[in-house]
Amino acid sequence: MIKAGIIGSTGYAGAELVRLLLGHKDVEIVWYGSRSYIDQKYASVYQNMFRLAEDVCRDDNMKELAKEADVIFTATPQGLCASLVDDDILAETKIVDLSADFRLKDVKVYEQWYKITHASPQYLPEAVYGLCEINREDVKKARLVANPGCYTTCSILTAWPLVKEGLIDANTLIVDAKSGTSGAGRGAKTDNLFCEVNESIKAYGVATHRHTPEIEEQLSYAAGYPVTVSFTPHLVPMNRGILVTAYASLTRDVTWEEVRAAYEKYYGKEYFIRLLDKGVCPQTRWVEGSNFVDIGFQLDPRTKRVVMMGALDNLVKGAAGQAVQNMNLMFGLDETEGLRLVPVFP
Amino acid sequence: MIKAGIIGSTGYAGAELVRLLLGHKDVEIVWYGSRSYIDQKYASVYQNMFRLAEDVCRDDNMKELAKEADVIFTATPQGLCASLVDDDILAETKIVDLSADFRLKDVKVYEQWYKITHASPQYLPEAVYGLCEINREDVKKARLVANPGCYTTCSILTAWPLVKEGLIDANTLIVDAKSGTSGAGRGAKTDNLFCEVNESIKAYGVATHRHTPEIEEQLSYAAGYPVTVSFTPHLVPMNRGILVTAYASLTRDVTWEEVRAAYEKYYGKEYFIRLLDKGVCPQTRWVEGSNFVDIGFQLDPRTKRVVMMGALDNLVKGAAGQAVQNMNLMFGLDETEGLRLVPVFP
Amino acid sequence: MIKAGIIGSTGYAGAELVRLLLGHKDVEIVWYGSRSYIDQKYASVYQNMFRLAEDVCRDDNMKELAKEADVIFTATPQGLCASLVDDDILAETKIVDLSADFRLKDVKVYEQWYKITHASPQYLPEAVYGLCEINREDVKKARLVANPGCYTTCSILTAWPLVKEGLIDANTLIVDAKSGTSGAGRGAKTDNLFCEVNESIKAYGVATHRHTPEIEEQLSYAAGYPVTVSFTPHLVPMNRGILVTAYASLTRDVTWEEVRAAYEKYYGKEYFIRLLDKGVCPQTRWVEGSNFVDIGFQLDPRTKRVVMMGALDNLVKGAAGQAVQNMNLMFGLDETEGLRLVPVFP
Amino acid sequence: MIKAGIIGSTGYAGAELVRLLLGHKDVEIVWYGSRSYIDQKYASVYQNMFRLAEDVCRDDNMKELAKEADVIFTATPQGLCASLVDDDILAETKIVDLSADFRLKDVKVYEQWYKITHASPQYLPEAVYGLCEINREDVKKARLVANPGCYTTCSILTAWPLVKEGLIDANTLIVDAKSGTSGAGRGAKTDNLFCEVNESIKAYGVATHRHTPEIEEQLSYAAGYPVTVSFTPHLVPMNRGILVTAYASLTRDVTWEEVRAAYEKYYGKEYFIRLLDKGVCPQTRWVEGSNFVDIGFQLDPRTKRVVMMGALDNLVKGAAGQAVQNMNLMFGLDETEGLRLVPVFP
Repeated sequence: MIKAGIIGSTGYAGAELVRLLLGHKDVEIVWYGSRSYIDQKYASVYQNMFRLAEDVCRDDNMKELAKEADVIFTATPQGLCASLVDDDILAETKIVDLSADFRLKDVKVYEQWYKITHASPQYLPEAVYGLCEINREDVKKARLVANPGCYTTCSILTAWPLVKEGLIDANTLIVDAKSGTSGAGRGAKTDNLFCEVNESIKAYGVATHRHTPEIEEQLSYAAGYPVTVSFTPHLVPMNRGILVTAYASLTRDVTWEEVRAAYEKYYGKEYFIRLLDKGVCPQTRWVEGSNFVDIGFQLDPRTKRVVMMGALDNLVKGAAGQAVQNMNLMFGLDETEGLRLVPVFP
Repeated sequence: MIKAGIIGSTGYAGAELVRLLLGHKDVEIVWYGSRSYIDQKYASVYQNMFRLAEDVCRDDNMKELAKEADVIFTATPQGLCASLVDDDILAETKIVDLSADFRLKDVKVYEQWYKITHASPQYLPEAVYGLCEINREDVKKARLVANPGCYTTCSILTAWPLVKEGLIDANTLIVDAKSGTSGAGRGAKTDNLFCEVNESIKAYGVATHRHTPEIEEQLSYAAGYPVTVSFTPHLVPMNRGILVTAYASLTRDVTWEEVRAAYEKYYGKEYFIRLLDKGVCPQTRWVEGSNFVDIGFQLDPRTKRVVMMGALDNLVKGAAGQAVQNMNLMFGLDETEGLRLVPVFP
Repeated sequence: MIKAGIIGSTGYAGAELVRLLLGHKDVEIVWYGSRSYIDQKYASVYQNMFRLAEDVCRDDNMKELAKEADVIFTATPQGLCASLVDDDILAETKIVDLSADFRLKDVKVYEQWYKITHASPQYLPEAVYGLCEINREDVKKARLVANPGCYTTCSILTAWPLVKEGLIDANTLIVDAKSGTSGAGRGAKTDNLFCEVNESIKAYGVATHRHTPEIEEQLSYAAGYPVTVSFTPHLVPMNRGILVTAYASLTRDVTWEEVRAAYEKYYGKEYFIRLLDKGVCPQTRWVEGSNFVDIGFQLDPRTKRVVMMGALDNLVKGAAGQAVQNMNLMFGLDETEGLRLVPVFP
Repeated sequence: MIKAGIIGSTGYAGAELVRLLLGHKDVEIVWYGSRSYIDQKYASVYQNMFRLAEDVCRDDNMKELAKEADVIFTATPQGLCASLVDDDILAETKIVDLSADFRLKDVKVYEQWYKITHASPQYLPEAVYGLCEINREDVKKARLVANPGCYTTCSILTAWPLVKEGLIDANTLIVDAKSGTSGAGRGAKTDNLFCEVNESIKAYGVATHRHTPEIEEQLSYAAGYPVTVSFTPHLVPMNRGILVTAYASLTRDVTWEEVRAAYEKYYGKEYFIRLLDKGVCPQTRWVEGSNFVDIGFQLDPRTKRVVMMGALDNLVKGAAGQAVQNMNLMFGLDETEGLRLVPVFP
């Protein structure tokens, strides 16, 4: 059994990790970390875990945790993982960091977008960007994985094959993303109250959202040239789900079949990426609770653009599911272990 | 592998059966029945099953299905199962009927509340009422199980121990139940449109809902005398979940601990019934997607009543989950097989 | 023009007062009180008021406000109004208190349920309980009106005629109430976050909710004997609306028409109470945004009970609308002025 | 009093017309048209109108209605108004058509996108496109007004000043629109059931939605050259509201103030268009129930694009409110009469 510890287990992503790991036959959770609920029973915070997770929450002590755990998941705000990790810890345990600390290779870009000083940039070179479908082989060998952001996972996977194959001009890419409210976290903020979110939709972080440089960095690798994108997130009155609608100019006349072939080339054998049939648009309801990304597209000959669409569950493939997928790879398990979840509908 | 067929697989309860059985290691679905979608791919109706359930839907042919399947689930409107079942079929396969056809032992009561003639009352004596926690031993030997209704499962389990132990006067019982909208089915009715249900709550079927006699029959067994209850269902703007708030007059002064002991006596060893800690009220969000029933209660010395509360997922413990639980019992499997689902939250 | 001041204008009830008073032809708002947002533009807190309410928020200073305003609305937590009011203020202005401070005539009951000391019990005798349809003539002469609670307004109005006419035994009354989330206020609490409320229903304050003694006091007046009721509130995933389902034993055999006649006797001429046609159940969606209370009922001959149902918008008839109705009466205006709002649907 | 008739009064847009006209001091509704509910009481279909709209529904008879009414609103599917209108009718009454029949000047474009033959193209030249803020003077003189679509109103108004002033290249315009579910109408379709819409978001009609040519035609007038746009509508789990997020490349370096000045030039004096303060993004919750359009924008120097955002209530400014605004202009009333509605929040 792999012993797993979770720092930040009482946030929504942390709680989803608990849900997934409780159903993973090869893993045992040995540490429920939560600074806000130290010594309280985990199930008193998340009553859904009543009788399933009877442990109490523990303070953030990565050094001690590293001794107890084979893998540590940090589902915490940016800055924390970078401030705690050190050589001793990495010698004893593997880390899947769900925060942004090790996602961007260029520390300057990190500090510019996140407005904090990076506490351990020395680990940036070795950290592997854990987008499993793209970096699978590197993940397998990693001891420190930077789990991608929810918007980023959806945005990058949706556009990747067409950028890589040169079918679109990546600098014309406009990503309009819509997220359920669990993405905003469990902090008690007026803006996230039921009455404020319900019956409304809004854009936020326009032209300034921190997932932008992450999307750009990865798509630049795919394109082979520096890519700048417009990225706009929106808050939708639902619990889970991200839908990305991405627009880009085609570099040449293409048929639906050619575009489809590009997607097949990269994702044809992927379990977690479902390429939808012609004319079918992804919907978040069809992936809820699962680790799937559903992808579809529509050509628009009038504007010579393609509209790419991707949907995932922000807490699963957008966070905890992908973290477990990374863990599976890092420990040589079947990549889908504990993740063959059938989407829950309705 | 147990071969399972589902008649009515494209309703919400049927779809939930598909979800659960796809995750059940001992079962293989051999028949996706659906009169409305004959020859269409199941996953084209339920896109969440894309690449998971690639079969096409088949017409209702119970005779043929009985030859192919070890167990048949009928997730259909009342009347259908009773009209199709016969000795030949029961000789070849087991049946878990999710409709109301075999729930009431008195055919007159059935015909009075459902306004249809029962097509095969001869099977009523042998049919077992599949409330597993109450009738476990009978279910194990049954070939025809009447799977309880969603409201009834929640109502009966919430009140049963206090009725059985004589702590409450069962004829003072008032059951105020609240259900998510999936309980209304997938039929295209104006009343169930998003805009009609959202931002509203209503009572319906007041004093006339068909689950009433089912609750009364079972609680009469517990009480040992004929029980009449007030039962009022309500429609709540959410997908899943039933919450029952049940009121009854206490027959004598009791302490919280005495009432708790009564619950423990009947449910203390049950996996799927979670008796909540003192002061904790059940909430549907804590059971969503799982087969749990959460039960709590509060004494009210001012009125000499007890307020009993129960919550479950209407599609799982209230329908498909309980059906699988019954199947597990009928086939001698671990009762929790395929049902150790961690509730999905948020 | 009546000059109106609002203390607590940035809570949901206060904001609804702003909405209603902005549409009231005889009223001008001269004071937007809000301790949390002093000197900030009201419209920066409630962006819906952009260009409609351009004033800044002011601190709670009832003495100064009394000099500027003809009427003061206190939409604040219990305790505040009682601690601020004095003879000088009441000599200069009228007060409609939306808190609980002056609702209960017995200060001991207040202190027992609210766990605070009442700061000015000397005004309890003169304060009028502002349930307009019941106490209209007293309200007209009042200078201090205690605006009823949201649950209480709905509960009392729904049951009043049958209690008054002796058709039901008031001590058998069980009130199961369901409320939208705006009733929980705008405070930033985890429990009221979108993801916590959405897709869930729960009871809370079981056997202990503070609206209980208020319902009991008023129904005791109607009954002519001391009344004790079971009252259970529930939180529903919607913004607005309260639905009350009330159960009571009939004192004798009655027909639907007799019960209807009792309702007609008290409400037949009321503009804001709509007695629904036979067989029609109230739904919160039909009253949203308006000052209406919709009432229906169903006899249950099997249990010899009646099920009474009432629906209102908790922010309008349950708070701000009733406050304006009270103000209209206090100032000799048409009672419906500014309140002939057509319910907003969908 | 202006006598108004509504054909299609039992759809959501028709019902919103009823709500608005009941609150309009100069209008009396003389005809509740509804083919589906002939001879049924209007309030039995829309119970919110109980005691407010006591008339019965009448069949579609525009000839007779023209004799009774000073203005006819047709809130019907495309094709109906064009098939009924004739010279006699237009000689007797004014028409505000909420369908698409007279929105597009080029009958070929209409027939190509709507797949039906236009029954009365002879009225296309005289019909005025009723986007009041743009075509105010023409509307005043019109007898046949084509009320714009909901998506179109929001899209055009959001982009118009920047197109008109040449600040953006209109052919780079990408309009990503999100709509509440009332926009899908009240027809009983599985796709619009609560459980199907709730907890999901999807794009639909990608590259093929019928509002596209309407946006293009109007923006071509503004641009002075033929404009082609990408337009993608999305369905959001809420009742009301449209949010448009529109992206376009700037034609030159501009400051925030320059862009703001362009908006001020066209909308500075408009009552119903609210230009938000710097940094404030429109949200549908702030306009719900009102006739406002809230507009904001954000420059993105990295991509040399501007992100324009607009929000309105699809049933008010996107349908019935704009229809009443058009009626006010056609009859020489104050343009805001009956429309100074304060947005309802929460």
